[in-house]
Parts: sequence; structure tokens; C-alpha cells
Amino acid sequence: MTFEEPETRVQRYLHQYIPLSAAMGVQVRTATVGHVQLAAPLAPNVNHTETVFGGSAAALATLSAWTLLHLRLEHVGLDARLVIQRSSMEYEKPIPGDFEAVCRFNDDFVWEKFQATLARRGRARMTLRAHLVHLAQRVASFEGDFVALR
Amino acid sequence: MTFEEPETRVQRYLHQYIPLSAAMGVQVRTATVGHVQLAAPLAPNVNHTETVFGGSAAALATLSAWTLLHLRLEHVGLDARLVIQRSSMEYEKPIPGDFEAVCRFNDDFVWEKFQATLARRGRARMTLRAHLVHLAQRVASFEGDFVALR
Repeated sequence: MTFEEPETRVQRYLHQYIPLSAAMGVQVRTATVGHVQLAAPLAPNVNHTETVFGGSAAALATLSAWTLLHLRLEHVGLDARLVIQRSSMEYEKPIPGDFEAVCRFNDDFVWEKFQATLARRGRARMTLRAHLVHLAQRVASFEGDFVALR
Repeated sequence: MTFEEPETRVQRYLHQYIPLSAAMGVQVRTATVGHVQLAAPLAPNVNHTETVFGGSAAALATLSAWTLLHLRLEHVGLDARLVIQRSSMEYEKPIPGDFEAVCRFNDDFVWEKFQATLARRGRARMTLRAHLVHLAQRVASFEGDFVALR
């Protein structure tokens, strides 16, 4: 058995089960329980002004947060369905090229509470934040509420 | 010269200049200055739970609102660049099949004010609402702030 990088495994999962991620050319740069970073090229995500289409920007940010929570649930062996309930995007700057979505989470207190609520009630909600980066500059912010259902 | 339906023209424009709309299989059902309706099939927009991926849902809603404002500006001969500044989505129900985005706008007062601000300041902001429909049922709500720049 050959060792497979988690990034390779997650990218294959995304492309297979969320085909839009393949159409967007999403590449998984980092995939850990505390940090997910996804990249996408401009070409398949461009709009009429040669910048990134807002829908693509929102989709990449959503994917990064969903992936982080998915990895966390998988890591603790929780078999829960994960759905998004609400999200918001602030488009801070136009994105005239390739871009990345970064989602970080390392709040142990919130995570323990989330797990306890999921165990007790069969469902739990968590808010995750992500941001988009172009040429090392922050260009958009995302916030999403996700619900896990056992 | 043959007559071309506005829906055909808008669909060609979207697929050409926003290639993600073609990857999503977006079809333009209605394209007027007061009502835009876009449809998308489940297959290219599916997620791991066999429902519509949140990013696709947000993208279709964004497109519907952007298209309506684009048609309005075009209708009055205003050559303005249109960018999205902020958006939010409420995912009310899972979407287990083909879906549509509906954006309506017919507030003459708001529109006159928007045009006057754009003429005076060279930029103006407008909030548009849209919703997603699956089998005649409302399944998600969108709100977006767009800015037009001359």
C-alpha cells in the first residue's frame, strides 16, 4: 500500500462527489483538521470583467469551510451529515487572477461543545470563517453556519 | 436579420463570459428588466449527499440578480461596470433535484434614485433579493449588494 497525501485524497473526493469543484479546477493545497487551503485558477472562474465571478468566489470559500468540518468529523470518527444553513460573503476587492480560500479553526472549547451537542441532540451547529487570497492579499471574507446531523 | 429571444441572447452571453454558468448548465428561462429566472440541472451541481452543492446554489442566485441589474442598465443605455460587494444566502431546505433562481425587481423609486446617484457620483449601490425554487417550493433566499461604477 502506498502512502497517499491527505491533500490528494481530499481533492479526489471533492472532484468525485462535488463535480463543480472539478469544473472550477479546485486544487487542495492543505487539508488538516485546523487548516484547509484550496486554490482555483482564474480561467474557469472568470467573469465578463476578467476578474473572478462572485459565485465562484463564494463556492471556493464554502468548499474550504465544509472541507475543514468534514475532516474534523472524520478525524473523531463521527458519521454525521453536514449541511450549510446560512452564509455571507464580503467581496472586498476584485480578484484579477488565480485565488485561494483559507479556512482555519483551532478553538478546542467550541469543538468540544459542538461534539457534545451533536452526541446529545443528534444535531449541532457551528460557524466557520474563511477568506480568499490573491497574490498574498486578502480579497474577500466568508462566514458560514454549518449543521451536522447524525 | 432574424429575431432573437432575449433569453437566448442572455444565455449565450452568460455562457461566453462567465464560463462557470456553462459548466453549471445554466439555462435562461426569463430575462426582462423586472424578472429574471434561471434554471440549472442537479447533475453538474450535485454534492456528496445527492443534493445541490451550496456553492452552486449561491452562484445561481448571484447570477440571477446580476443579470437583472445588467439588463436594467443596458435598457437605459448606461455603460456601467457592475460588481458584487456583499451577499448572503439562507439555505432553507436541501435541494434534491433541478432548481431555479428567481429575481424580481420593480421598485421605480429605488431605480430612479440609483440612476440619479450613478449619474451624480459615478457610482451607486443597490440591494437585490432572489430566491431558489425546487418543484415550485422556495428552498433558499439570497440577498446581494451590487455596485455600479461608470
